[in-house]
Formats: sequence, structure tokens, C-alpha cells
Amino acid sequence: MEFTKNFDVRNGRNLTMLVDFYELTMGNGYLESEAGNKTAYFDMFFRRVPDDGGYCIMAGVQQIIEYLSNLKFSDEDIEYLKSRNIFSEKFLNYLRNFKFCCDVWAVPEGNPVFPNEPLVVVKGPAIQAQFVETMILLTVNHQTLIATKANRICRAAEGRSVMEFGSRRAQGYDGAIYGARAAAIGGCNSTACTIAEQMFGIPAVGTMAHSWIQLFPNEYEAFKAWAEVYPDNCTLLIDTYNVLKSGLPNAIKVFNEVLLPKGYRPKGIRLDSGDITYLSKKCREILDKAGFSDVNIVVSNSLDEFIIRDVLSQGAVIDSFGVGERLITAKSEPVFGGVYKLAAVENEDGTIVPKIKISENEEKITNPGFKKIYRIFDKANDKAIADLITLAEENIDENNPIELFNPVYTWKKKKIKDYYVKELLVKIFDKGKLVYESPDVMEIRKIVQEETEKLWPEVLRFENPHNYYVDLSRKLWDLKEELLHKYSSEYVE
Amino acid sequence: MEFTKNFDVRNGRNLTMLVDFYELTMGNGYLESEAGNKTAYFDMFFRRVPDDGGYCIMAGVQQIIEYLSNLKFSDEDIEYLKSRNIFSEKFLNYLRNFKFCCDVWAVPEGNPVFPNEPLVVVKGPAIQAQFVETMILLTVNHQTLIATKANRICRAAEGRSVMEFGSRRAQGYDGAIYGARAAAIGGCNSTACTIAEQMFGIPAVGTMAHSWIQLFPNEYEAFKAWAEVYPDNCTLLIDTYNVLKSGLPNAIKVFNEVLLPKGYRPKGIRLDSGDITYLSKKCREILDKAGFSDVNIVVSNSLDEFIIRDVLSQGAVIDSFGVGERLITAKSEPVFGGVYKLAAVENEDGTIVPKIKISENEEKITNPGFKKIYRIFDKANDKAIADLITLAEENIDENNPIELFNPVYTWKKKKIKDYYVKELLVKIFDKGKLVYESPDVMEIRKIVQEETEKLWPEVLRFENPHNYYVDLSRKLWDLKEELLHKYSSEYVE
Repeated sequence: MEFTKNFDVRNGRNLTMLVDFYELTMGNGYLESEAGNKTAYFDMFFRRVPDDGGYCIMAGVQQIIEYLSNLKFSDEDIEYLKSRNIFSEKFLNYLRNFKFCCDVWAVPEGNPVFPNEPLVVVKGPAIQAQFVETMILLTVNHQTLIATKANRICRAAEGRSVMEFGSRRAQGYDGAIYGARAAAIGGCNSTACTIAEQMFGIPAVGTMAHSWIQLFPNEYEAFKAWAEVYPDNCTLLIDTYNVLKSGLPNAIKVFNEVLLPKGYRPKGIRLDSGDITYLSKKCREILDKAGFSDVNIVVSNSLDEFIIRDVLSQGAVIDSFGVGERLITAKSEPVFGGVYKLAAVENEDGTIVPKIKISENEEKITNPGFKKIYRIFDKANDKAIADLITLAEENIDENNPIELFNPVYTWKKKKIKDYYVKELLVKIFDKGKLVYESPDVMEIRKIVQEETEKLWPEVLRFENPHNYYVDLSRKLWDLKEELLHKYSSEYVE
Repeated sequence: MEFTKNFDVRNGRNLTMLVDFYELTMGNGYLESEAGNKTAYFDMFFRRVPDDGGYCIMAGVQQIIEYLSNLKFSDEDIEYLKSRNIFSEKFLNYLRNFKFCCDVWAVPEGNPVFPNEPLVVVKGPAIQAQFVETMILLTVNHQTLIATKANRICRAAEGRSVMEFGSRRAQGYDGAIYGARAAAIGGCNSTACTIAEQMFGIPAVGTMAHSWIQLFPNEYEAFKAWAEVYPDNCTLLIDTYNVLKSGLPNAIKVFNEVLLPKGYRPKGIRLDSGDITYLSKKCREILDKAGFSDVNIVVSNSLDEFIIRDVLSQGAVIDSFGVGERLITAKSEPVFGGVYKLAAVENEDGTIVPKIKISENEEKITNPGFKKIYRIFDKANDKAIADLITLAEENIDENNPIELFNPVYTWKKKKIKDYYVKELLVKIFDKGKLVYESPDVMEIRKIVQEETEKLWPEVLRFENPHNYYVDLSRKLWDLKEELLHKYSSEYVE
């Protein structure tokens, strides 16, 4: 398998040591106690959709692939670890010869995902399956957060173009770079982040800052100089001094004096401050009257899905949104709380012993066992009806009806006929060998559009969306109950 | 000058192409219009302290140094830019032979900084001084945000140890790595992020996850195995099943059975869920009675400055806090709104023409001209009285009193005697040559402690802190007024 456009070859960073120190102290401990050779199953999942939304957009699988493909401890890494004087020579040797040998499954990027579904499953020696926790969480938590936020913003824009403009306010360089990637997956059609075009093929866009205008003797001269350099792609920033008294009149003057005589049509004007509802309407009216009804109005300035929905509902006339800080940091809810929990351990005879993490907080109780997820679609309209988490050994026969039931209120049941299913988890590593190829970012963006189309509008709603059903198979539900009863008799008050 | 521990040699990334596309379209335009050779002065500053705090902690200068030292366009970069078909051959050649030649000043890391103060000043050819905008903002915005948040959290902990635990929830890999750096600068004394110890010398710490305990037949066996591997540094996570009925009794049993006979004292117990006020008090009582009054209680679980202050005020008995997602993302306010604005342009005869960015929003009006900042200290107690922004040509004679005045309510005046001053901006690049050496991260951490000591407690307060004075010199104020009157007569309604 080849990595070209997708792969972070430019930077070629080895992020092996980007790991919580406790993964190392546990690793060392596993070897010492011989528990490290046990085969463990870990699930990565989340418990809540940010912003009380109806679903999330899976993202980050390609970067997990790059990370796992590059796992390797350098001599300096070993030297550094040795200097800590807490790791055994046996463990340091293990790391020196580290060869990733786990099986890994993941929900492919771009699919809508829901709370409590395993998004990534890792099976392998406990010492390895544990070690990759930090980077799997960091990668999926970040990109899924931003892809989900971007998807909300693009939905609010109702088909208008949304450009990702956040690099300068991102949380670190990768926040900008992979944030731009995730934003494109979520639906943005371009980015201001140049390196994101180079790395991922997301169209990079940009025109001028206020400083361009300030560097010239006056606004008219600045616009004129711009139009002369970019006659075929001329968008002017018109709010440096005063939009209606100065910016727009100067822009129209330059359109007429510089572009039209050369046979070019102007592309757009951009507003970056002020009351964008009022100004966009006024600008539209004036542009139309001046014969520029084809000139786009581009708007930026601390936008998010709430403001975009609001200004559009007030009749703002906007063709394109530039969205910065509130997208690139997911400002309204900047933490995606994915977790990585032990789900099962394999005995030496190969039998799988399911594990459960109990908690006094019922929502924090995990689903035990080695599992898979089926998405169930209605044959009549291709809409997704529910997701069903089953044990890995279970298969669904599409010819038979399925009975779904609420895992808490089990008397709430539903029988489904005329359906088809899709398995969500796909194997990406087989005993450490990569067996999956990621689509390009702009292809993943299309997957998002196709797959969210299959959700009912009630699930897509911003406010109080319908709770999409994520149910457990009877077998998994029984297993969970059994373990809960067992533990509760031992520990829970 | 050598880069060793401080420098990101491990990754050696060239982030030249991490740039907003408009810096490139402007750069190309400057060359075409001959405006690019003008010498421009840009200021990086912010307008508001996050969380309505009283001050921010400057951070990120070392990474600006690394970025500017590495600025270079590779052949692939040029190829990519050429493929966009909008850049002139002259511009591509300029980039091919790019040599950074600007002067750069910055406030050294660890200093408290305030709104409207230039934190970074860049002077050089407009095309270059403009180009570095994205990365200067991205770097300082991120690290100052996290250092400031960490400083709040550490203040709430009132001298107790605060460990940075956030990697898994950070916004991207650099969010974790440089976030850990900034958190240490702000006051955290350790991190879970292993690579941050390797790169910056911040002590990395960690023990076990719940999965360690689940991988053993029972909690007791898991604790016993741990104590046998780490007898001299044994901290046990006691909330996997039930803190008081299972975790703590098993921990005490293992302390008595495994550690004491070998002559070791246990180090601590860790709580990661539940009501930490109640549980910490109970655990302390039980540990003390069992003869373990020297055993630390470590607490984690969605902490921030507000929760820490709250549980401490309720009498929680905690020695050490592990702080994760709310620190590493600055969850309560995850955007640091630093901006980069043109302050002046040099004419061909060398005279500096100050530039102002006006706005209908008064707070967004910039301070014009090439400037510097004096921090004024009281000789009697070394407390910081005020900061004074002056033109670069102005000097303060400490033998004469200074009159400070409020830049809005100019009748609010204050005459200062018996003071001394410190210039805040330090030159870090001279015509593109690095002339400054950053202290190590743990030294910067000390600077923060020393410099925040010099602020009055009223400025340090969380709620409604005293507004530290940031005043303008008479000369700068006069200049600003003059420009405002000039522009307002032209444009403002």
C-alpha cells in the first residue's frame, strides 16, 4: 500500500513518545508481572455529543494509521527512558525491538457516530493495546470534535460556501493543520491554511488583510493595485475605514475602472466587522444597482452555527462564510470526551472473558465484550433506523425481522422488517499489518454528505434532536446484566 | 548560539507553509506593486484577558524563534505554489531565495502581560513582516492561553502540586506537546506527557489506569503486583470498584503486606471519580488511623480552578491535583484573541509614518507607531504600579516623577515618584539574526512565580480583578488623538 497525498511525509514525525507516562509505567509493570502477554480488547468510544447535537462525524482514522505505522522507539528514546531509573532492562529491550502486532478496527471517517459505540477497537497483547491509548484518543477526540462542529456550521449555512479561517487562533500547529482537515471532512469547502492544501488537497483560499489597504496611500489605491494583480479573481475587503461611505464605493469604482475595461468580472466583496445583516443587505442592493449582481458577498467575524442561522433568518444576503476561531477550537464545547476502556481479556485457551467498568454514575458503565456495530437501514427510503451493538460472534440475517429494545426501558420494543444492515467497524490493521486504505479528504467529505442524508431530519436538528437509537443485541444485553449483577453484589452500595 | 534542549530537533519540522493563504496573495501583490519593499512595523497584541482575569502569562517566544530560524521554502513548496497559477515568477523566485531579515522584539516568556500591549513587534520589508503573521499569532495565542489558564489553576490550588494530565483531550498533537510546555510555564510542576519531559525537561509522571486493575483477577492482586514492581514509588488508583469498601482497604492491605516489610513507605492513593470532597476527607481519616499520614491523596476528574477552589473551601484534603481537559483546552474560554496589526510604515527617507486601524468599536482602535513598553515598579515594595506604552524614541528618566493618566478619562491622573522601570520588549532578531537565548521551561516557570509576586493581590483576584493600568505616554496619546481626528473627519459617521 502506498502513501502519497494522504500521508504526513512532509513532517514525517514519529510521535511514539507522545504518550501518557502511565502507559509506560503500566507497560513495564505488565512485563514484570507477566500480565502483559494476555490478549486484551480495548474500545474507544464517547458518551455525549458536543453542543447537545444529534450525532458526531467520525474523523482521524488516517492519522491513527500513520501513527501506528510509525511506532518505533529511537535510541534516544530508550536512553531517555533508561535515565528515569524505573524501567527494567527487559522492558527497555522490549521497546527497543517493539513491533506493533495488534488487530485494529475503526469506523471509517465521515460516518455519523453515536454515544457508546466503539469507534476504534484494539485487540492485542495488553502491553501494546494499552500503549496506543493516548494517541488514539488524542487523534479521534480532536478531529471528531472539529468535524462535528464544522458539520453543524455548514448545515446552518444551508448550502452556502463555508471557508475554514481559523489557523491563527488554533490550539497549536496541529490544531490548525488537522483542524483544517477535520473541518473539510465536516463540510467546509476550502481553508485559509496553505499547508492543508499541500497535505490534503483542500482548496486554499485568501485575499487581503486590512494591512494591505493601510500600506497604500488610500483605500482606492490599494484596491486598484489589487485589481491589477488579480483581475480574474478579485475580492476586495471593504471594511477598513467605512463600508458604505468608503469601502463599497471605492470597490465599485475599481471594478468599473480597472476590471471591466480589461474584460474581467469582479469576484466579490468581503465584510469582516460591523452588523453583517444590515451591511450585507445594503451592499447587495448597491452592488445590484451598480450592475454587479454576480459579485459575491463574503462575510467573516467570529461566526459559528448560531450566528449564521441568526443572520440568515434576519435576511442577511451572504454567499460565503469565513469561519475562524469558533470552528477551529470548537469554542462552544472544546472538549470531546472520548475514552478508551478495557472490554475483554482472552484466556490462554482462547476464550474471551468480557470485562465491565462499573460506576456509581450509570452512564459511565461500559459495554463488555468483543463487539461490532450494525447500522440498520430502511429498505423503503434508505434512512438509518438504528444502530445495533452486538457481540463480534453475532450475525444478522437480513431476511428475518429484528426486535430492537431500549437497553434501559426494555419494554420499549420495536420490530424491524424490510431492512438492510451495514457493519460500521472495518479492520484497519491485521496483526500489526495495515489492511485498509483511507479515502482522500475531499472524498471523505462526500461520504459525510451521503451518510448524513440517510439520517432523519429529526436527528439533524440543532435543538433537542431526536435521540437516535443505539441498542444492544439480546446476547450483549444479557451479558452486561449478568456482569452488573455480579459486581453489584460485591461492591455497589 | 546553540539549540539543544530547547529546540524541537526531534521533529525538526519546517512550518513555513503553515501560513494563511492571504499572506501569500498579499506577498505576491506587494512585489507586483513595489509596496513590498516598504519597511513595515507590525504589533501583535490582545484585547481581553480570558475568563475576565486580571492578566495573562506571556508564552511561546521560543517557538517563534524556532519558526523564524527555520523559514525556508522547499522545492516542493515552490512547485505547489506554482501549480496554483496565480503567483508571478518574480514572487516564486523571491520565495526560493527567501532570507528572513526582519527585526523582532518580544516580551520574554513568563512575564505577566496586559491588553493592548505589543507582545511581539516585527519591523522589516512589508512582504516579510506580513508573512509571519499567521505563525506568530498561532504560537502566542495558543501558549499564552494555556499558560494563563494553568496559572489560574495553580493559584486555586494554593501551593499544592498541579500535574498536567490533558494529552488525550488536547486539540491535536502540538496542543498536547506545547500545551504541556505552556502549562508548566503557568505553574504546573509535572505532566503526564512523556515527550514533554524529553523535549522540555518537565518532569513526566504517571501510575496506572483502571485497566491495570481490571486485567488482574481482582483489585488486591492488581495492587500487589504494582507494589512489587514499584515499591519505592507506589501510588494506587482506588476507585475502580468502590473507594471505601474495596479500593482503600485493598491499598492499605498491600501497603502493610508488601511495602512495609520491604522497608518502603507508600507514596499515595489516587481518586478519579465520585465526590472528591467527601472521599478525600474519609480517605485521609482512614489512612491516618492506619498509620499512613504521610501518604498523599491525589485527585483528578474534570478539574479546573473553579472546582479546585470549591472543594478546598469545603475542606477537601488533597495533596496533588491532576488536571486534564479543562486545562489543555482552556475549556472555559478556549480562544485567545491575539491580533497582528500594522502600526507604522517607514518612508524612503527613514521617517516613520504611524498607522492606525480605526473601528466603530472603540476598543478595536489600535495604538499607532513604533512603540515600547515600560513596567513601572514601586521602589518601596517592588510592586508593579502600571505599564506605560511609549513611542520607541522616548526614554524615562527614573529620577523624575512621571505623570500617568487614563487614556479615556484623561482627568484621572496619578503622579509617580520613587519608582524604577523595566523595559518589557526585548530584541530577539536583529535583521534576521537571532540575538536572544530563551531560558529553559522550568526557569521560565520561576520567572512567572517571581513576576506575578510583583502584582498586587487585587490584580490576581479571580472575580472582578483590579484593572491594572496600561497607560500611554503623552506623546503617544497625542499622536493617536491626531490620527483619530484626521480619520474621523474623513470616514466615521
